[in-house]
Amino acid sequence: MSKGRLEAFSDGVIAIIITIMVLELKVPHGADLESLRPLLPVFLTYVLSYVFVGIYWNNHHHLLHAASRINGTILWANLHLLFWLSLVPFVTGWMGENHFSSLPTAVYGCVMLMAGIAYSILARAIVADQGAGSKLALAMGKDLKGKLSLALYAAAIPLAFVNEWIADATYVLVALMWLVPDRRIEARLQE
Amino acid sequence: MSKGRLEAFSDGVIAIIITIMVLELKVPHGADLESLRPLLPVFLTYVLSYVFVGIYWNNHHHLLHAASRINGTILWANLHLLFWLSLVPFVTGWMGENHFSSLPTAVYGCVMLMAGIAYSILARAIVADQGAGSKLALAMGKDLKGKLSLALYAAAIPLAFVNEWIADATYVLVALMWLVPDRRIEARLQE
Amino acid sequence: MSKGRLEAFSDGVIAIIITIMVLELKVPHGADLESLRPLLPVFLTYVLSYVFVGIYWNNHHHLLHAASRINGTILWANLHLLFWLSLVPFVTGWMGENHFSSLPTAVYGCVMLMAGIAYSILARAIVADQGAGSKLALAMGKDLKGKLSLALYAAAIPLAFVNEWIADATYVLVALMWLVPDRRIEARLQE
Amino acid sequence: MSKGRLEAFSDGVIAIIITIMVLELKVPHGADLESLRPLLPVFLTYVLSYVFVGIYWNNHHHLLHAASRINGTILWANLHLLFWLSLVPFVTGWMGENHFSSLPTAVYGCVMLMAGIAYSILARAIVADQGAGSKLALAMGKDLKGKLSLALYAAAIPLAFVNEWIADATYVLVALMWLVPDRRIEARLQE
Repeated sequence: MSKGRLEAFSDGVIAIIITIMVLELKVPHGADLESLRPLLPVFLTYVLSYVFVGIYWNNHHHLLHAASRINGTILWANLHLLFWLSLVPFVTGWMGENHFSSLPTAVYGCVMLMAGIAYSILARAIVADQGAGSKLALAMGKDLKGKLSLALYAAAIPLAFVNEWIADATYVLVALMWLVPDRRIEARLQE
Repeated sequence: MSKGRLEAFSDGVIAIIITIMVLELKVPHGADLESLRPLLPVFLTYVLSYVFVGIYWNNHHHLLHAASRINGTILWANLHLLFWLSLVPFVTGWMGENHFSSLPTAVYGCVMLMAGIAYSILARAIVADQGAGSKLALAMGKDLKGKLSLALYAAAIPLAFVNEWIADATYVLVALMWLVPDRRIEARLQE
Repeated sequence: MSKGRLEAFSDGVIAIIITIMVLELKVPHGADLESLRPLLPVFLTYVLSYVFVGIYWNNHHHLLHAASRINGTILWANLHLLFWLSLVPFVTGWMGENHFSSLPTAVYGCVMLMAGIAYSILARAIVADQGAGSKLALAMGKDLKGKLSLALYAAAIPLAFVNEWIADATYVLVALMWLVPDRRIEARLQE
Repeated sequence: MSKGRLEAFSDGVIAIIITIMVLELKVPHGADLESLRPLLPVFLTYVLSYVFVGIYWNNHHHLLHAASRINGTILWANLHLLFWLSLVPFVTGWMGENHFSSLPTAVYGCVMLMAGIAYSILARAIVADQGAGSKLALAMGKDLKGKLSLALYAAAIPLAFVNEWIADATYVLVALMWLVPDRRIEARLQE
């Protein structure tokens, strides 16, 4: 089964997700600064989600690059990841339109947590196919950054009901943590 | 004529279909749990259709992988399949918004039936081009799973007017039946 | 300059055009047959436009396959063709929603005429690059089918104001005329 | 890291941006010429933005063609460029719906300025990776056209508040200036 078509399909889905999110930035009717103001939280959520989806594309790119072949499990694990990512435009729009209030902020965290879990399932499916001694397995190591992200998301969800800004700050923290591309895989593969 | 471009175009169309379906999940105005409740049937229909489109992408992937070349008939048979798949977001939204009531459930089945027929026309066009003794022809065999799916869809359409849940359960059954990738083709090709 | 990326970009744009057209089929609020009835003209226009865009993709595929390289002129001629095709969802929605009334029917013909002209400009740019003695130049020949289509569109535009059904029938005629893939190019290239 | 996937992803995003812009051309309810009139400024803005995005795709094509490999910096510089381009449909719709009034015209210029800056950051990241003596570095030269465009955008933003037509004319001027593909890179690479 060809890896190229899986990458092309994932690229297509991620490209569309990243682009239709901007449709939530509804064109205002007025032409003054006042009509732009309510769009500010929607814009900030868009920036955050754009960075998250960009990170996923980036890491997906590295991960698939490390995979030498594709099987049925990897294919469905990949579709599972794309499913959770496809919900990002919805939760982005909901959180943005409601100015980061508690429930939308918590649901945003749930989708991010599920996407994170789906990514680690995909990574495991690829490692399982390649064997525990493969370069990818060594490169992934204990995957501390991945586990820490999941823990931070899991913590942010209940915290959104205490104070939504703590949850939002946690999401920004996770995004910043990942903005650096996954050099572990990159470095190991170049050896 | 190059197979690559047919695959790339189909990937693009399927990626967009799978992603614009999520636009039917309209961002609610309220920020409480009450505003999410009416979205539940829309979400469940989205999950079902996502799985169906994922199955089509998956099987399309296998089928085209087995095709060694493309001709005009295959090209139009493929566009015919994509036509019926392009109606999936519409019937998904209609069934979801009307909480699985009879007519939308039946129309959903009609589109699924037509997509299934279009897929088997495409498979036949590829087999016809390769010859009855080809690996693909042997791999397809009597295509019992395909024929059973068409029969189940055809049965579900009138049953939707008796009780819509019977029809919905039938769709879920067909989806589960196909979640396993088409190992027949995979296995035969690896011989 | 690589032909592959021009094809991939065109595939992407055409795939999106063909898919967002279906968004004009707005999900009705009712769940009965009565709520589907006003969608019938929109659906029929969608089928017609789907066939037209499918024909363009098909012929574009053949044309680019025959091109051995790309230059700046071909690149912009291609973007020019995609521009007119990108207006197809708008005129499809307008004609469908107004039940094929005169002005939308005429404007539909204008966009089709411009797309046809843009296609022949693109074909000429590729032939110019390859030389008058090239296989493609011979395969295109006098391009009678192309010229006849342009003449039929040009005739249909004023006829839409006499009787819109004459114009609509002309569009269907042109679509049927092209449903057969461009065997001229195919045949010549296989020699 | 493979250049192909970066190109494919960028192609996807740019193809979607160029196509969803047309969704701002909302299908009018009436079928007469009067209902088309308010769409004229939206249509003209669409044409302008289509040309701009076409130019970016074109130059991006040339730039990436000149890059021999991709690193993390190039990857994020590319995502940064796509971010600003993704805002083009929003500012296009806003400027078009408000008939080129001052603030939307200025905001349009800001997004164009940011996209221009993002493009030059991307170009620099690629040059930095290839070395100052590389073909691309020589081909880019002092990048007078790039710098002039940025200066014109920067000038157009305040001028939009003096007279919006001066700003609009400036945007058209920049577009015309770039309609000629970047022959510098093309010429140098062919040596």
